[in-house]
Amino acid sequence: AARRGGREMAAWARAVRGLLLDVSGVLYDSGGDGGVPIAGSVEAVSRIKASGLKLRFCTNETQATREKFVKKLQGMGFDISVAEVTAPAPAACRILKERSLRPHLLVHNDLVPEFAEIDKANPNCVVIGDAAENFTYANLNEAFRVLIGMEKPVFISLGRGRYYKETDGLKLDVGAYMKALEYACDIQAEVVGKPAKMFFESALAEMGIPAHQAIMIGDDIVNDVGGAQRCGMRALQVRTGKYRSVHTLHP
Amino acid sequence: AARRGGREMAAWARAVRGLLLDVSGVLYDSGGDGGVPIAGSVEAVSRIKASGLKLRFCTNETQATREKFVKKLQGMGFDISVAEVTAPAPAACRILKERSLRPHLLVHNDLVPEFAEIDKANPNCVVIGDAAENFTYANLNEAFRVLIGMEKPVFISLGRGRYYKETDGLKLDVGAYMKALEYACDIQAEVVGKPAKMFFESALAEMGIPAHQAIMIGDDIVNDVGGAQRCGMRALQVRTGKYRSVHTLHP
Repeated sequence: AARRGGREMAAWARAVRGLLLDVSGVLYDSGGDGGVPIAGSVEAVSRIKASGLKLRFCTNETQATREKFVKKLQGMGFDISVAEVTAPAPAACRILKERSLRPHLLVHNDLVPEFAEIDKANPNCVVIGDAAENFTYANLNEAFRVLIGMEKPVFISLGRGRYYKETDGLKLDVGAYMKALEYACDIQAEVVGKPAKMFFESALAEMGIPAHQAIMIGDDIVNDVGGAQRCGMRALQVRTGKYRSVHTLHP
Repeated sequence: AARRGGREMAAWARAVRGLLLDVSGVLYDSGGDGGVPIAGSVEAVSRIKASGLKLRFCTNETQATREKFVKKLQGMGFDISVAEVTAPAPAACRILKERSLRPHLLVHNDLVPEFAEIDKANPNCVVIGDAAENFTYANLNEAFRVLIGMEKPVFISLGRGRYYKETDGLKLDVGAYMKALEYACDIQAEVVGKPAKMFFESALAEMGIPAHQAIMIGDDIVNDVGGAQRCGMRALQVRTGKYRSVHTLHP
């Protein structure tokens, strides 16, 4: 059995044609200072590309436009371009257009340009991202009032992460604030981004490979590993990023 | 059957010896300016007292000490004293002492004096109240880090209200922020205050009457009506306060 297992694993490894990489906590630790690359990660990205494997960066980070996000990573030495990034905001924009939704945005100032093409007058939905410092008492009350004032509230969340690690410590992620508004309004958010199946499927489509030929690599057991596995991918959890921080809670 | 129902109701009405009154949304609408009494409510309190019925004010408001809260209501003309008020903070203090818990407080500045006697050095639990303007991004991250840093997080919430009405509009209540931290840490808060059974039971004990001789009057279907009914009390929902604001959502 062990021999057969080994042979199967070797066959599977030969079949792998593409990698999906989480970014924050895998390639770098984010932070108010822009963040710092994790040791060896710049070289890892170069080696993956040199090996001929397809590579896609799959991030739930919504504190900046993809352009700004990529520029930051390039500044740290990463070989990355905007066209290689799958992120929640463009996916949300597609949904907003399809369903004629006009969002009230509770997002980071630097993400707002991603919604430049979208009509935001007289909102008929709320879109929440990792607004960070924009998660003020006043802004949360405002988003709540918009939602509870709707006959049928439509609430879109750019991810459902619990928290993430920045250089100065752990921070609450968009999922925590999503839960606050869900509870207050007695509604359920529609999640765009990891771990939504559609998010991984569009990343695979962009790479042009089927799920069984791809591996997702991330530091989040739910959003990265669980989400990818539900799409038929293999997934690996790295022990960087938030992983170490929670060993007492989730051993 | 209708005749028997009428007779039973009359018998029950004669048996009523005490009223538990919610305050915000029933006696007054709170607000940054201190709030305004609801028409007829000052007279109603006087009439109840003159009738010989026992009366207890049961509030989940945690934006001020009971002293300050009572002073505000007296200023509006209400016949009310500190000894007649059942509130979450004193109940929480009893629990903290019994279990040797040292709280990290995420509460309104004006509530802090209620915890004056409590050791707060080297916290081994988090207590959250309706912190209002203190619900900042930084304070929420700090409370989160204290909780997730504990081997077995202890999280006490002074209520689980979704929202309430102030003179300038609806505001998110402590329950929404409780849910955010519960989700981020994958834990459950212990709720002190309405709708906790213990809270209503201590109010009844303070009045010296059994549950079947008491009526709870409030504007919140879950915290006031549901909580009281689970203790064997009758309950009435008034149509003031938050009631009207949500008719589109909860018809």
